[in-house]
Amino acid sequence: MADIRLMTTAAPNNTALIIIGDEILTGRTQDVNIQFLAAELASLGLPLAEIRVVPDVQAEIVEAVNILRAKFKYVFTTGGIGPTHDDITAESVAHAFAVPLLEDAEAVRRLQDYYGHEPGKLNAARLRMANVPQGATLIDNPVSAAPGFCIGNVFVMAGVPKIMQAMFAGVKPLLHGGPPLLSKTIRSHMFEGDLAAGLTAVAARHADVTIGSYPTMANGKPLISLVVRGYELSKVSLVRDELSQMLIALGDTPEELP
Amino acid sequence: MADIRLMTTAAPNNTALIIIGDEILTGRTQDVNIQFLAAELASLGLPLAEIRVVPDVQAEIVEAVNILRAKFKYVFTTGGIGPTHDDITAESVAHAFAVPLLEDAEAVRRLQDYYGHEPGKLNAARLRMANVPQGATLIDNPVSAAPGFCIGNVFVMAGVPKIMQAMFAGVKPLLHGGPPLLSKTIRSHMFEGDLAAGLTAVAARHADVTIGSYPTMANGKPLISLVVRGYELSKVSLVRDELSQMLIALGDTPEELP
Repeated sequence: MADIRLMTTAAPNNTALIIIGDEILTGRTQDVNIQFLAAELASLGLPLAEIRVVPDVQAEIVEAVNILRAKFKYVFTTGGIGPTHDDITAESVAHAFAVPLLEDAEAVRRLQDYYGHEPGKLNAARLRMANVPQGATLIDNPVSAAPGFCIGNVFVMAGVPKIMQAMFAGVKPLLHGGPPLLSKTIRSHMFEGDLAAGLTAVAARHADVTIGSYPTMANGKPLISLVVRGYELSKVSLVRDELSQMLIALGDTPEELP
Repeated sequence: MADIRLMTTAAPNNTALIIIGDEILTGRTQDVNIQFLAAELASLGLPLAEIRVVPDVQAEIVEAVNILRAKFKYVFTTGGIGPTHDDITAESVAHAFAVPLLEDAEAVRRLQDYYGHEPGKLNAARLRMANVPQGATLIDNPVSAAPGFCIGNVFVMAGVPKIMQAMFAGVKPLLHGGPPLLSKTIRSHMFEGDLAAGLTAVAARHADVTIGSYPTMANGKPLISLVVRGYELSKVSLVRDELSQMLIALGDTPEELP
């Protein structure tokens, strides 16, 4: 990569994601939250610079939260905030911040509204979902009431994609983003090894963008996506144009994608 | 989680995965390598206990490799071993091990066989794919020749899923696994909050398995998968039977899945 500015910890708006869940680590569940959050955060100018997947183990969650919240502008977590014994995110985050876990009156009210006052519905297990670290602010859950929360620069959300996405919609207005990370893609039909030297030359001339090269095969022929990423549209477009000229000079017929 | 033995770093056979690639962090690409490797490694008794996604930035790759190789039995990496400027995994891993990056004669031979001796085919960019850290052993690439490599307890593979999977088939015989991490699943039609107390009680009685609770909705009704994981089949089966009895006692009609 020509430039490390976009993605390193040096960039002040970089963020991290912690996925909490044995179901990802064992292969039971195909993650879909990474791609959603990565694209959303890039568009908000808060690019993800690190993702960790950790098990449902308090010490591992605490360590990841504390390392990443010190290193990045914001940390997002998904998973582990339901009513069952393996949902230990809230207590782990409280532990990370060295504050007590407290029952939140507003969270209880929301759960009561959702579950009704029928005896036994809002039971002890469900009431656990009203526990948040002292000083936390609730994140709305328009799907199933049980809230997420934010504390410091850490945003704690559900793991179920539909609920996470609904929570993130409520989180977005709270985030102070930067200029969006823009990208433009050009597609080549050459083999990666045949365009690499030209690509390196273009990349070397433009330290303020990054260029990724992502090879696939389509009908037995190479199909390479060259993705230019940067914060200035004119610069990103310029570099894509240079890539286009470079490919045409090599005899390729590149296609510009959005 | 009832027991932290399965997934913590305390378990001697635990492993880690490092996914190297801006394309995952920006949301351009939906990862599919995690689920494949997670399931394979669990079946080999080498459960993944941590995954990190890091950008195409040498310092970040070096740090992840060095922290995780000290902590886990094996570390697997995917991505960043192609011919273009953003492929910096081999040099980063060499840096992590504090050894020089050297052109490997056998890797050159494989590339020559694949690309032929036509002038210009095996160019400088492609020859970069023959560079491996001093002391590394090649990992076969039956798809497109350019090898992965292993050094110490670190296995460096391609990011393209088809190539990664082919490489992993060659890696498997080199791994010293433990008893496979087994799982049995039971499906409940209750709401998670209504089975949580019973679930907690069963989990508390069995510290040598873990039980995950994964809620979804199907046709507007709850569908919860309870997954019992452990290393002894008789124990895993016993706990699933207890969960089944617990659910039936609550009026549920649970389904046993494989």
